[in-house]
Amino acid sequence: MAVRAAVAGASGYAGGELLRLLLAHPEVEIGALTGASNAGQRLGALQPHLLPLADRVLEPTTPEVLAGHDVVFLALPHGESAAVAEQLGDEVLVIDMGADFRLKDAADWEAFYGSPHAGTWPYGLPELPGARAALEGSKRVAVPGCYPTAVSLALFPAYAAGLAEPEAVVVAASGTSGAGKSPKPHLLGSEVMGSMTPYGVGGGHRHTPEMIQNLSAAAGERVTVSFTPTLAPMPRGILATCTVKAKQPGVTAESVRAAYEKAYADEPFVRLLPEGQWPATASVYGSNAVQVQVAYDAAAGRIIAISAIDNLTKGTAGGAVQSMNLALGLDEATGLTTIGVAP
Amino acid sequence: MAVRAAVAGASGYAGGELLRLLLAHPEVEIGALTGASNAGQRLGALQPHLLPLADRVLEPTTPEVLAGHDVVFLALPHGESAAVAEQLGDEVLVIDMGADFRLKDAADWEAFYGSPHAGTWPYGLPELPGARAALEGSKRVAVPGCYPTAVSLALFPAYAAGLAEPEAVVVAASGTSGAGKSPKPHLLGSEVMGSMTPYGVGGGHRHTPEMIQNLSAAAGERVTVSFTPTLAPMPRGILATCTVKAKQPGVTAESVRAAYEKAYADEPFVRLLPEGQWPATASVYGSNAVQVQVAYDAAAGRIIAISAIDNLTKGTAGGAVQSMNLALGLDEATGLTTIGVAP
Amino acid sequence: MAVRAAVAGASGYAGGELLRLLLAHPEVEIGALTGASNAGQRLGALQPHLLPLADRVLEPTTPEVLAGHDVVFLALPHGESAAVAEQLGDEVLVIDMGADFRLKDAADWEAFYGSPHAGTWPYGLPELPGARAALEGSKRVAVPGCYPTAVSLALFPAYAAGLAEPEAVVVAASGTSGAGKSPKPHLLGSEVMGSMTPYGVGGGHRHTPEMIQNLSAAAGERVTVSFTPTLAPMPRGILATCTVKAKQPGVTAESVRAAYEKAYADEPFVRLLPEGQWPATASVYGSNAVQVQVAYDAAAGRIIAISAIDNLTKGTAGGAVQSMNLALGLDEATGLTTIGVAP
Amino acid sequence: MAVRAAVAGASGYAGGELLRLLLAHPEVEIGALTGASNAGQRLGALQPHLLPLADRVLEPTTPEVLAGHDVVFLALPHGESAAVAEQLGDEVLVIDMGADFRLKDAADWEAFYGSPHAGTWPYGLPELPGARAALEGSKRVAVPGCYPTAVSLALFPAYAAGLAEPEAVVVAASGTSGAGKSPKPHLLGSEVMGSMTPYGVGGGHRHTPEMIQNLSAAAGERVTVSFTPTLAPMPRGILATCTVKAKQPGVTAESVRAAYEKAYADEPFVRLLPEGQWPATASVYGSNAVQVQVAYDAAAGRIIAISAIDNLTKGTAGGAVQSMNLALGLDEATGLTTIGVAP
Repeated sequence: MAVRAAVAGASGYAGGELLRLLLAHPEVEIGALTGASNAGQRLGALQPHLLPLADRVLEPTTPEVLAGHDVVFLALPHGESAAVAEQLGDEVLVIDMGADFRLKDAADWEAFYGSPHAGTWPYGLPELPGARAALEGSKRVAVPGCYPTAVSLALFPAYAAGLAEPEAVVVAASGTSGAGKSPKPHLLGSEVMGSMTPYGVGGGHRHTPEMIQNLSAAAGERVTVSFTPTLAPMPRGILATCTVKAKQPGVTAESVRAAYEKAYADEPFVRLLPEGQWPATASVYGSNAVQVQVAYDAAAGRIIAISAIDNLTKGTAGGAVQSMNLALGLDEATGLTTIGVAP
Repeated sequence: MAVRAAVAGASGYAGGELLRLLLAHPEVEIGALTGASNAGQRLGALQPHLLPLADRVLEPTTPEVLAGHDVVFLALPHGESAAVAEQLGDEVLVIDMGADFRLKDAADWEAFYGSPHAGTWPYGLPELPGARAALEGSKRVAVPGCYPTAVSLALFPAYAAGLAEPEAVVVAASGTSGAGKSPKPHLLGSEVMGSMTPYGVGGGHRHTPEMIQNLSAAAGERVTVSFTPTLAPMPRGILATCTVKAKQPGVTAESVRAAYEKAYADEPFVRLLPEGQWPATASVYGSNAVQVQVAYDAAAGRIIAISAIDNLTKGTAGGAVQSMNLALGLDEATGLTTIGVAP
Repeated sequence: MAVRAAVAGASGYAGGELLRLLLAHPEVEIGALTGASNAGQRLGALQPHLLPLADRVLEPTTPEVLAGHDVVFLALPHGESAAVAEQLGDEVLVIDMGADFRLKDAADWEAFYGSPHAGTWPYGLPELPGARAALEGSKRVAVPGCYPTAVSLALFPAYAAGLAEPEAVVVAASGTSGAGKSPKPHLLGSEVMGSMTPYGVGGGHRHTPEMIQNLSAAAGERVTVSFTPTLAPMPRGILATCTVKAKQPGVTAESVRAAYEKAYADEPFVRLLPEGQWPATASVYGSNAVQVQVAYDAAAGRIIAISAIDNLTKGTAGGAVQSMNLALGLDEATGLTTIGVAP
Repeated sequence: MAVRAAVAGASGYAGGELLRLLLAHPEVEIGALTGASNAGQRLGALQPHLLPLADRVLEPTTPEVLAGHDVVFLALPHGESAAVAEQLGDEVLVIDMGADFRLKDAADWEAFYGSPHAGTWPYGLPELPGARAALEGSKRVAVPGCYPTAVSLALFPAYAAGLAEPEAVVVAASGTSGAGKSPKPHLLGSEVMGSMTPYGVGGGHRHTPEMIQNLSAAAGERVTVSFTPTLAPMPRGILATCTVKAKQPGVTAESVRAAYEKAYADEPFVRLLPEGQWPATASVYGSNAVQVQVAYDAAAGRIIAISAIDNLTKGTAGGAVQSMNLALGLDEATGLTTIGVAP
């Protein structure tokens, strides 16, 4: 078997990480690579770490260029995927790494993205209840956002087990690659190094409704999420610190841990760490692993669940490959690793 | 006037930052500098950034060495200040940068520090209600912890104005200097760079009872604090993201902002940023300034208050100098700056 | 005395650092602040670390705005200073932080900058032989480039003492602020963190002729410089590693050290470190100090001289203030410090 | 085929990186893992990024534990390999990642390491002339030092082609993992971040004789090396900036480039970059690739050759695996990649 894959949007960080993973995938052959303003440029100038592809030249993102592939990955700006996807046949596996098809509620989409809702595709987070089955054999996949990946995996076991009140508080730190490759003054190295700073505070971040959607489904009731993202001085990684008030009485440290052990007993990429060891973004650098730990603070009456992922791997491109594997009927872990590049 | 100051514990990060500030203080003359295992060494080898003091030699921390000064700063490990302070006369201003005299409740002290409680001194955070008056003319000062400084200044206005439920959730990111200069494997540059990781999760961090003490005093009722500190890949700075459920009904974005404007209208070191601008640790690098911003998330029903400080300056040595100024009757801002070293 | 100072180009890194220093200068009153595309904006949005100036608004860079000041600092793009300077009266002290008036040789200027040569002003590196006298009372100053500052101070004593062959090899690492605040993809934090990379290799960097000019003057013969700058993952600082073949016979470790001790015996900002201690950029962070160390490698027959500066302070804005002090007849060190902000 | 491999010294950075690579090697089965003071600990606590080995427990480094493997890797402190190697049979492939068997000249060894010389093994840098043949089928391999790997690959083509005078000047920047995992104050994150600093200046670094050995062999004459290593604020990577005076007359930019193109035409891991593109350590992060670029500075009469490697991969563990592949008769690139983890 040789799966021929095209990547639309190969010059950005998501596209570059996807290519890094596809180059290591034993069943994939890399086909067309496209860009917008970068069409015509050598990939070696844009992604100098991808030496085996250095002499490939980016093509424009057109139906003709994307035709003739088994899989097409869309690493495009939010709102641009629907138009491209429409031009691809139903027999082609289309994996959207943008936000366009993640949300079920059209009103949420319109409130946060300001354009008409394009639809909803199977959601590429197989660890969520029911999600894996929906991905198997699917021809369309919506890859989750990086923050919702980290937050949903940290918190859904508590909600699924009925342990948590429906008001989550999340503070997450992200590496700068999450903000993309488009140069902006506040993303300069000079600004970023040595600084922690929040953004999108107060409910405005576009990933908020996606978290609410996932956690509400797990809880079986409407969950609110107070979400504060912060920009951290590192290129990659998300550390999501999530706290929820425990449903009283009866929640104990033991019942909390048992819920997480059950949720992650058989997951190939999620590791509930031994008690006393906490997630670190460095430990999952470049890997598809999710490190999770949970504690119960009896004095405050709250469950604290913390996850670490690589925002570009499990948070974007690794999640896309994991979903592709499921959609194609391959072993879910093909071409992916749980081993981080550290120190 | 020339205030003669001794520094016990001049080789660590707190002592070094204090000396940096005292060198710039127009009323202070630097006297004895002491160390423990480093006694006998040149300061130039230990604090190479303090060029004017490079040829000073550390002395042992004895009553004889510390005698004859107007002010003695104690930058010692927790639990060691009381024994040294006892040997200093009542007429000497003693400023403890350790934890020994911060807590009012002996049981809290013993639970978190595991030794007998030494007592309680006036608390060196003048911005808190009533604190400034207690510092003026005092001969003893307990300098607050770095996290409690950042968290208390972010949250007390909401509690003082009666806007917040008594259950605070705090996630704070700290630069590595907060962990001190004693070499440990997890503090190596190789481990720290590129990584965010939590520690002391679930209520175990020693700064927790200090935050509870401050916020409860402001609220007039017992406040619980769920506190998660994280280690960030930067040398200095604390970003404290604090959220509390709003007391309903009646809390609005406007009433929240008004409470903070009132609290900080006349404070020389705390700046409530214009709406839409968020604190960044880089902006207060090396300064005694506190940047604060607050938002109300109506969907989640929570107030989000965020502060940025330099953990070594306002969070430790700057707070000590500010308190010294008040204790000596000097202008509170003497020798201190609100200007950060950026980028 | 109150020196009224205007800053043309107050929104960039050089302008911001200059304002940081001028705010701490006891004799200076800050007048007009101008910008180009940023005119009309609040300084608080552009330089959030300069809290005391947060409410100042940038004006356009016009003769009317710059009129009525004792000193005008020009922090403009290379090639733009001459036109502005022409419009300022001869009685105004004009300090150019750009390259326009640094080079004596018009052909050098034209080869490296591609425009007609505007002239040569007294060179603002008082530590060089003869430079201090030329600055005293001058109404025009050309502030040196950041790399030439570091390299000239590392090497000129060896040349002035006749110890070195006229072929210098320099490899310097610079923090990213040296590349300015204009956003470009390769300066993004995501690209910079974790990476060392050279640029302008092979003699092409514009600071090369400036180094040659300074070292040739010290040597009394034409010196060639092989200069390789590298971009380091830090916001500030230059570490310049400079090696020259020793003139044989007769050069010894002792004669080399003696030359440096003599050169820097009375300099307020240059510190020849004790033997065995090496410069570190962190030690001069935010300060006007220069740390210098020198060794003689007998096996290779080469002198290795290494300096560390803060590129924005001694390398740009601190050098400008030091020169201003001399030009105005003030103590050279007024408003400047040799104390770094570390760790 | 299943090659059973033991790793002596599995808790350090070299051992951890080796395990990361061996886990991805299709022909290797990981056997015994040993440590010294860490024997008895779970690997999950020491190398949290190696999730598949988290439950493995370190054993003591004894002949019994190391017996029964096809390959034994020694990642031990310098000077400790010989004693362990003696106890292993001649039929076992022993790959020493320490310095013990790198140098041919016993006097060099004794001068730089201060102990009796243990011998010389085939040198694990296959790209050097003659080295590959000596590794094929060998039962003993001395893996090169990280700096000599970067420097030799940057410079040997110029020497092999007779283009360079025998006096090399090298300034290299290394990530902090090169200094190891043993905690020391100057390696703390607080000290390292934001700082560039040299060490071992003036010929004292132990890698100097190894560079001289390699370059002299390529040149056919004794080459001196002025080597200045610097510590850079990043966890991994070496950027080696190497300059040599060109042998005149006749050297041109074209002849220099031709020499490098010839040297690296068929090397699987060394990439001579297109003209105008320069090596960056970020581009080889976690990969076994070497990026090389070269320029000729006609004004200074010098060749500037620059290489970037990952010090832990190609500079240590990747070089070890590459050598193992050759020694075992496998394809040289098995289990290794030229793709970096970026950004």
